[in-house]
This record gives sequence, C-alpha cells and structure tokens, in this order.
Amino acid sequence: MRDFTKSHEWLSINTATIRKQQGAEVPLERIIDQCAQRGIRAISPWRDQVAAAGIDQVAAQLRAHGMVLSGYCRGGFYPAADAAGLKVALEDNRRAIDEAKTLDAPCLVLVVGGLPGALQGQAAYKDIGRARAEVRDGIAASLEYAREVGMPLAIEPLHPMQAAERACINTLEQALDICDELDPAQSGMLGVALDVYHVWWDPKLEQQVARAGTQRLLAYHVCDWLTPTRDLLSDRGMMGDGVIELKKIRGWVEAAGYAGFSEVEIFSDLDWWKRSGEETLDICIERHRSAV
Amino acid sequence: MRDFTKSHEWLSINTATIRKQQGAEVPLERIIDQCAQRGIRAISPWRDQVAAAGIDQVAAQLRAHGMVLSGYCRGGFYPAADAAGLKVALEDNRRAIDEAKTLDAPCLVLVVGGLPGALQGQAAYKDIGRARAEVRDGIAASLEYAREVGMPLAIEPLHPMQAAERACINTLEQALDICDELDPAQSGMLGVALDVYHVWWDPKLEQQVARAGTQRLLAYHVCDWLTPTRDLLSDRGMMGDGVIELKKIRGWVEAAGYAGFSEVEIFSDLDWWKRSGEETLDICIERHRSAV
Repeated sequence: MRDFTKSHEWLSINTATIRKQQGAEVPLERIIDQCAQRGIRAISPWRDQVAAAGIDQVAAQLRAHGMVLSGYCRGGFYPAADAAGLKVALEDNRRAIDEAKTLDAPCLVLVVGGLPGALQGQAAYKDIGRARAEVRDGIAASLEYAREVGMPLAIEPLHPMQAAERACINTLEQALDICDELDPAQSGMLGVALDVYHVWWDPKLEQQVARAGTQRLLAYHVCDWLTPTRDLLSDRGMMGDGVIELKKIRGWVEAAGYAGFSEVEIFSDLDWWKRSGEETLDICIERHRSAV
Repeated sequence: MRDFTKSHEWLSINTATIRKQQGAEVPLERIIDQCAQRGIRAISPWRDQVAAAGIDQVAAQLRAHGMVLSGYCRGGFYPAADAAGLKVALEDNRRAIDEAKTLDAPCLVLVVGGLPGALQGQAAYKDIGRARAEVRDGIAASLEYAREVGMPLAIEPLHPMQAAERACINTLEQALDICDELDPAQSGMLGVALDVYHVWWDPKLEQQVARAGTQRLLAYHVCDWLTPTRDLLSDRGMMGDGVIELKKIRGWVEAAGYAGFSEVEIFSDLDWWKRSGEETLDICIERHRSAV
C-alpha cells in the first residue's frame, strides 16, 4: 500500500468540492489555479464548469500547470420516459466522451440515472428493472463509441438512497456484472469509479473489489460518512470526520492493483461549501496524508 | 397472490405509524381501540409503548378485541463498546423475547444495531466487520433462548443509509446468510422481517426473496419511498405515494410462500405524524386495498 503520509502526489480534487464557496459559484479557472498553487496534480471537473470556462482554455490551463484529470464528470442518466428522451441521452453521452477525450481524461464517469423524472419529483414509471435494462442498453451504445475514440467508461455505483433519482446501479457487484456482460474481454474500456461514500456499507465490498482488479478499477473517490447524516445528497464529510475505514478500503483497492489518484469529492451544503476553497483544499491535503 | 382490494383482513398497523399525532404521544390503548374500531386485526407494537401501558393490560385488551400481533418491535442493537455493554444487550434481548411470548407475537423483530455509539453521534469504533461479527454472535446467543421458549427471531435488514447507526445488516442476502449459518436446519425459529422501504432498491431482491421461502419470511412491512426523501429516518411515504412497486414485491413474497399480514410502518415527522391517527388509519386501509 502506498504511503500517503509524506506527500499528496496522489491527491486529486473533484471540483464539486470547492465549486460553491460561501454562497458563490467559483469559476473553474480559479479552482485549477488554487489546486496548482498547492502542488495538487489532478482534478476531476464537471461538464458545466468546463463549458462555462471553455474546454480549450481548460485544456491549455491544465497543460500549463502540468496537471491531469483523474476522471471527467459525468455521463450517464440513460433511462428516459420515451424513445426521444433516450436518443437525447445517448447523443449527450457521445458529446461527454468527446469532451473527456479533448481533456485527455483517463475515464468518463457514468452516473447512470434512475427512474426518469424522479429527480424532478415525479417518476415517469416505477419499474426499476426497466430502468436497469435501459441503463445496460445505454452503456452498451456509449461503449461502442467509447471504444472507437479510446475513452474508458467508469460506472459509478451510487448509494442505494440515490436509486430512484440518480443511479439504479447501487452495488459494486451489480456494476461489475454489467461490465462482465458488456466487456467480457476486460478490454480496459469499461470499469467502475469506486466512491467510498456509496459503497462503504456493502458487506461484499472486499470480495467485489478483489473481483474488480486493475482492469475494472478506473477511479477511486474518497470523503466520509457522517453520523448523523442530515441530507441524502449534500452532507458528506471530510476524510477522518466520519465512520468510513478509509485506510482499510484503500488497502483492498491497492491490493487489487489500483495505483491511481485518490479523488476527494465532498458535497456539503451544510459545512464545507460555507468555507473558503483555500481552507478546504488545505484540509484536504492534510487529511489525504493522515486519514486516507 | 391474495386479493387485497375487497378487504383489509391482512392489514396490520405498526404502532409507530400513529403514535405521534399532532405533536402528542398517543397511548397504546387508544391506538389499539382505533384499530379495533376499523376492523384491523393486527398490530405490531413497540416495547416502550407496551411498558407504558402495562404488558398484561395490553395482552388483555388485544384478546378482548380478538386482535393479534404481526410482530413485536424490537430486539437487537447487539454491538457494544465493551463486554459489559454486550452483556446488557443480551439480557435486554432476553427480556424482549419474554415480552413477545407474553403477547403471543409470531416473531420478535431484530434491528441488529450498527457501530456502537454512532446513533449518539460518536462511534466507539469504525470497524463495521467487527460490528457484524458481534451481531452474528449476539443473534446466536438470543437464538438459543428463543428456541427454549419458542419465539422466532426476525432479522430486519435495514437500508444501507442506516448501516452506521441502526443496523449493519443491510441486504436480504446478508440476513439470509446469517440465518443459514445459525439455523441451517431452517427450523422456523430464525428468519427475516422484510420491509420494502429498506430493500426495494436491491437488484437481487427477487432472487433473495425466492431463496428466503416460507421458513424465513416471518414478517412483511410496507410503506413507500418518496422523491425527494428529505430525511434519512422519518420521511417515509404512504403506500402509493412513492416509487416502490408494492404489488410486484408482494407478488414475489407470496410466491415464496408468505401468507401473513402486510404491516404498515410509516415514520413521518414531516407529514403523517402531523395528522390525526384516525385520518392516517383510514388512508392506510384505502391504500392497503388499492396500492399494496
């Protein structure tokens, strides 16, 4: 297991972590500069932030700082109320793959979607089995294009409390079953983004991480689970402030062959988004060394 | 599959559903009367309510109304910070078994506990594997006594969002694995309480319900999953108001051999606990017929 205590060379920042600071949206350019100033070598930006900043400008800024991506957020959201909606989703994923390629991302992270309309408060249908079939078909279609351009897709299993609204792939086992079905040759073009927040509770986690192996583990995300958790979406904790056994899980992940970045992704309306980006980044570095 | 549209003979009310009405705690005696007046044949009461009302009085009142229990809430909470805490937990479960026997319950429901102290905001340790081992050992100890007195234990897998604070058994598969380990003969003395709220998202639900079969399916609880869900504990929905495929799941459960009550358990600080018990019960009956 790599020693993180003396450097943060393997720290990446998911830009959602510091995009909303003290009530204001922080431009991606500034986030990149803040990371670069602290010797952080990688980020994972969101599509809307990249669009606002201009993708070529973002690529140039990253190159100038010698920085890379640990992933690109995000594709997915396949299930749709009708065929027209599905077509729109597939085209959008194609564009996301192109953007990820332009930014030379190691993978496009897929938050696959849940029951269509549920995120807006009214599900178009309740059949989660149908949503899961649409997700599988959607990933299969995206994978075809991803193979053409050489952009790995990373399915992110989301916590079961997000099953209705954001992702109906909810365990690592389920994600790997889809990987095995669509990419039996383990080509490296389809795998998973493993976020401890979503999977820490899973009694089969150790077993399934070992099953995933190097070919499937494309990204690794950290934060912490707070007790109590006051909101289903945006009450994530800083590493070390919750109950997740971060070192144990990283041990499993590295034993399975993962040697990439440890990406911090904290959604926190109630705490971290109220602080300055500088403060949050400094504590991310400290906790990356002491708690991850 | 039984036809629920024309009667509510298989409706049971978990008394938490109407115990907090319009800000006030409702005595169990009144809850039982409210149910009896509506031809509801079964309830599942909580230990503290029974203690407040007096267990012999509760038993007599139920007999007078010709009512039965669909389960008794609850045993469990095994993991402890130290050996003394574990001893207290085991003794408390012994008492819960005795109470369930006095009330002639079909099973004692086990909410097994999570990381000790987490419910109070500070976990004594973070090793969820250790908590799971303590749970297994605790159930094994309780089962020995439960066999003596003839009181089946029903492990309730809780939603993964409750893993830290309330139960580190989080899938039906995990619960059944423990049942098979501790009761390989399928004696009927160890099984599960299946609450749709906790398991509806599980991609292996249909498969594991079939695996459970008559010998393991000891209780069946219903409510609904709202979008959005505004609180991790007490924002459950009335059947039909959310996204759970209630009829499909009951179909699986009955195909596996379950022929008991459908117990309504709704924790709802934000809606139902603000209404009168009478209104809630009337709507439970209506939705039991139309949505369950």
